[in-house]
Amino acid sequence: MSDESRRVVVDTDTAGDDTQALLMAVASDRVSVEAVTIVGGNVEFEYEVENAKYTLQLADAEDVPVYEGARNPLVKDHEFADYVHGEGGLGGDLFPDTGIESADGYGPDAIVQMARDNPGELTLLCIGPLTNVALACRQEPELGELLDEVWVMGGAVNTLGNDTPSAEYNFWVDPDAAKVVVDELDVTLVDWGVCMEYGAFGPEILDRIDDIDTPFAEFYRTITSHVREFTREQQGIDAVTQPDSLAAALMIAPELRGEVGHYYVDVDEREGMTRGHSLVDENGVLDEEPNTHVVESLDADRFAEMSLAMLRGETPESVL
Amino acid sequence: MSDESRRVVVDTDTAGDDTQALLMAVASDRVSVEAVTIVGGNVEFEYEVENAKYTLQLADAEDVPVYEGARNPLVKDHEFADYVHGEGGLGGDLFPDTGIESADGYGPDAIVQMARDNPGELTLLCIGPLTNVALACRQEPELGELLDEVWVMGGAVNTLGNDTPSAEYNFWVDPDAAKVVVDELDVTLVDWGVCMEYGAFGPEILDRIDDIDTPFAEFYRTITSHVREFTREQQGIDAVTQPDSLAAALMIAPELRGEVGHYYVDVDEREGMTRGHSLVDENGVLDEEPNTHVVESLDADRFAEMSLAMLRGETPESVL
Amino acid sequence: MSDESRRVVVDTDTAGDDTQALLMAVASDRVSVEAVTIVGGNVEFEYEVENAKYTLQLADAEDVPVYEGARNPLVKDHEFADYVHGEGGLGGDLFPDTGIESADGYGPDAIVQMARDNPGELTLLCIGPLTNVALACRQEPELGELLDEVWVMGGAVNTLGNDTPSAEYNFWVDPDAAKVVVDELDVTLVDWGVCMEYGAFGPEILDRIDDIDTPFAEFYRTITSHVREFTREQQGIDAVTQPDSLAAALMIAPELRGEVGHYYVDVDEREGMTRGHSLVDENGVLDEEPNTHVVESLDADRFAEMSLAMLRGETPESVL
Amino acid sequence: MSDESRRVVVDTDTAGDDTQALLMAVASDRVSVEAVTIVGGNVEFEYEVENAKYTLQLADAEDVPVYEGARNPLVKDHEFADYVHGEGGLGGDLFPDTGIESADGYGPDAIVQMARDNPGELTLLCIGPLTNVALACRQEPELGELLDEVWVMGGAVNTLGNDTPSAEYNFWVDPDAAKVVVDELDVTLVDWGVCMEYGAFGPEILDRIDDIDTPFAEFYRTITSHVREFTREQQGIDAVTQPDSLAAALMIAPELRGEVGHYYVDVDEREGMTRGHSLVDENGVLDEEPNTHVVESLDADRFAEMSLAMLRGETPESVL
Ligand SMILES: [Ca+2]
Ligand SMILES: [Ca+2]
Ligand SMILES: [Ca+2]
Ligand SMILES: [Ca+2]
Repeated sequence: MSDESRRVVVDTDTAGDDTQALLMAVASDRVSVEAVTIVGGNVEFEYEVENAKYTLQLADAEDVPVYEGARNPLVKDHEFADYVHGEGGLGGDLFPDTGIESADGYGPDAIVQMARDNPGELTLLCIGPLTNVALACRQEPELGELLDEVWVMGGAVNTLGNDTPSAEYNFWVDPDAAKVVVDELDVTLVDWGVCMEYGAFGPEILDRIDDIDTPFAEFYRTITSHVREFTREQQGIDAVTQPDSLAAALMIAPELRGEVGHYYVDVDEREGMTRGHSLVDENGVLDEEPNTHVVESLDADRFAEMSLAMLRGETPESVL
Repeated sequence: MSDESRRVVVDTDTAGDDTQALLMAVASDRVSVEAVTIVGGNVEFEYEVENAKYTLQLADAEDVPVYEGARNPLVKDHEFADYVHGEGGLGGDLFPDTGIESADGYGPDAIVQMARDNPGELTLLCIGPLTNVALACRQEPELGELLDEVWVMGGAVNTLGNDTPSAEYNFWVDPDAAKVVVDELDVTLVDWGVCMEYGAFGPEILDRIDDIDTPFAEFYRTITSHVREFTREQQGIDAVTQPDSLAAALMIAPELRGEVGHYYVDVDEREGMTRGHSLVDENGVLDEEPNTHVVESLDADRFAEMSLAMLRGETPESVL
Repeated sequence: MSDESRRVVVDTDTAGDDTQALLMAVASDRVSVEAVTIVGGNVEFEYEVENAKYTLQLADAEDVPVYEGARNPLVKDHEFADYVHGEGGLGGDLFPDTGIESADGYGPDAIVQMARDNPGELTLLCIGPLTNVALACRQEPELGELLDEVWVMGGAVNTLGNDTPSAEYNFWVDPDAAKVVVDELDVTLVDWGVCMEYGAFGPEILDRIDDIDTPFAEFYRTITSHVREFTREQQGIDAVTQPDSLAAALMIAPELRGEVGHYYVDVDEREGMTRGHSLVDENGVLDEEPNTHVVESLDADRFAEMSLAMLRGETPESVL
Repeated sequence: MSDESRRVVVDTDTAGDDTQALLMAVASDRVSVEAVTIVGGNVEFEYEVENAKYTLQLADAEDVPVYEGARNPLVKDHEFADYVHGEGGLGGDLFPDTGIESADGYGPDAIVQMARDNPGELTLLCIGPLTNVALACRQEPELGELLDEVWVMGGAVNTLGNDTPSAEYNFWVDPDAAKVVVDELDVTLVDWGVCMEYGAFGPEILDRIDDIDTPFAEFYRTITSHVREFTREQQGIDAVTQPDSLAAALMIAPELRGEVGHYYVDVDEREGMTRGHSLVDENGVLDEEPNTHVVESLDADRFAEMSLAMLRGETPESVL
């Protein structure tokens, strides 16, 4: 990695595609992953921690410190999503035990400390519930000014949610945190809708992945087996969604980005049918200042090529 | 009208396209408009009442009784939408004063009475806030069994609302009533999204209307002048949405209907950012029984032809 | 009854103490009970209707018309309270079948019609959920100006509720209706707290009632048997609360009334822990106009004496 | 202070009576104040920090570390209460500038660290909004097991709130935090109602304080001047409420405590009329496990004597 690369902290509830986002970020020469912070989300916290360490190890990046953060949402009771990712979060059969120690300190503290130590230089890639980031906001009211970019995979804009009809999982699990983060940081949002439209791999890409003979591709096949079957049975299609690695790729490569709107966004933190709903005022009817960038279109082919490059062991940006 | 035609009550906050829905229903030989009930909505209640009477008079149907119903939502404070339709609701310059008397009795009572008198025969075409219909539900717990079909223009399914980012006007104004009606009656929903996609007239249709020389076409041009300018200025397009007359056409003509899903639908009646939000559980993740039919696609060309026929003074179904 | 007496409509979910309120109102020469309207509440609607008719019959007042009103709350799902009053609502063993016909028409319509026919003369005594009265408000926006007084038994002011820790039963069952009524009418509130403090009969009064040999006292003993046992078992005390008849007595007799505050009152209509909560801004911190009179103290002894007189077959005001 | 004394962390939004609670705790030989953590609340955060340091200095306890914690509520926007305590929070004229440095580290981290270092030994005295404590809960899921006692001044049980009709200030400002703390820790609650009934000093006690010639009494007169005038003008009475020092005294002296109920308690964290409402299920109607101890009565005279002793420079427990 070059010295000039952007510093990145990946905040993740590591299961499924979180691993691909981690691999994408670590494989890129354009960014330097300074730390990983784990947040309560998809599966049991201890699994998430091990999944992250295993992924870093696979990429020869076990020196990246892994900080343990919040295990539960700010206010709400927690709910897992392991029915999607299989027990453990890596397809159901893989339960790593790396023996790597977690870094000393609390995830949100680590985010705050790195932001203070590198004002204006740190980018957050947030691919889990936003509890850690909201806690960092609470600790450092100036966090927004201290950070460079904040990329968030979350929300469901003009589309059905994946957790409830009104909400995407990351926002649903900790809507209070999502509300805080959207309100206090300058977020670029990669929502479930754009991920469905541009970030799903169909049979053609999946076939090409099947032909790659690397540990990365092998790992991909392992972790997607469960969700691929789940999708085939539930929806009758052979496809794998890649929301987290899509957010990573967009963060790395401006070349991917299409239309990016600037809108007022708010999150419904109330219990009830719209818990975690992401309001995006595209028509500006609420007379609120735009506070969030929303990725509305992107180059799906280039994203697939970046992913394939990474799975072949190349830098993802090599195909751009 | 034939004796065999279906009996219809049109429940309307008569302004703008409500008039076209009324004309469409009255012009059709397939249905018989038995009564019109007025509900608080778009503009001042007295304007709505006169607008309905004027429209019926235009169609030589002033014998259809016009019942005055609820002027305010079940629980919420009322808000008008006259900034869309112009003062008075007919474009801003037309303020009818027909001298026709309203029918004796209260709108919701009239609905209940007709339903009881004609069990299984009555269809409701609901193109305003649902206050009257909810009140009829309160009065007659068996209303659902007594009615034939219930067509509702309302809600915003997987699309931005037209009143707030989360809600369409009719549902937003009286979300409590919408919740009651969706819960207790077997509704077929024509939502704002399907109306935007299939029910808007662009320049080509509008040009054809400009060439029609009938009182109906003249009336159309009068009432759309304000909203057409509003749309041109706000959105830079020459188009007129026809949500209410689209619902009327769908009610009249099964030939128009495309995909119609059967889903669990609920309405958020809480104050706050999602007031009036229509939850539609298309993927069935909530394990609730489907309770609502949702029109998802339709034949837009045929709808335009039906409207043009009606404006020429022909029966709308003559073009099918 | 004198011609000069005030005209009263009693709106009731007749069970338990509702009967005593009816008897009190009918027995008084100061008021004339013009009609009874039944609202969904304590027990099955049909029981409530029969309980009211039976009570009127007992008082030789079966000519008072009994109108059937709303069976369900405005928006919420209904819940009964028959665990308190015994099945049927009259202690558990008494299930009247009077054969008296209900009056033609719908309860809320009857309220509106009487108010229009007698502007400024009609008093409402509301001792059930407020659905009927809210429906009357919907039908006649000027109802407040048409009525004389509106007495409401409901709410829990600075005290535990009797249905949930935050709410009294009548407000809890239909909080939307309570909100509408408090907002639109000039209500005098007799809350659960003042009823507990001033309107409960202890052993001494109950003993005196035991000594009265009239059909009224016999009826009292029948209907209170279940709730008396319930109270004894649950709370270890021999006492019977008289919230509805207390409201009736206060309506009849200004001599009873102590402090009556004038405050801004609102009702929480949201689902959740505070459903039906009655906010009373006694310190005026919300800068809202006072809209409700709240009875804060009263002459408990005189109330007991009025009740005893009524049970002896005398006019309740004879003891004042 | 004796080695055997209980270790206490005081979490405070230091203004007004918070100072008296601090002095009470520091003056007692029964407890040892190990640290003070500052939380956003009554007045500007920087004022709160200095107020705490100044108070400790006055008590010759400037070696007690003062940790700065969260400046804003978990999720809600913050609102001050300086209209009560005067600008700065010490009566309006006193703005300390001690030059004492804050301790290194973040308030919630300090609470977690001390709890982990002294399992089962640490008592929290919480006399501000509960943000810091909730953040500590997020960081250490086992915090409840690690702590000894948790005393909280907050909530309004069967009484009007002091911030809104439904809520007390500490709970109102950060209801999300209050909900978390009540849910996850074994709290003993000293609510605004018990503080009003037992913890207000009237003219007689205030006269006795006027006669004390110590820096503590002088300080008391300074900080209460504004609130005393406020109370006199607003409520026509000469009285000073002592909620925070009452909680401190109850924590120190079991001799003070009267009835202490064990109930299920929950906090309404929603925006709206009942934000910060403390539900206390005294009658057990919700079938939830009791989770909170609620002080219902206490020895008001002894509390006053403890306060007077402290103001004379004696240990508060010397008068017991
Ligand atoms: Ca994730
Ligand atoms: Ca309409
Ligand atoms: Ca009752
Ligand atoms: Ca405080």
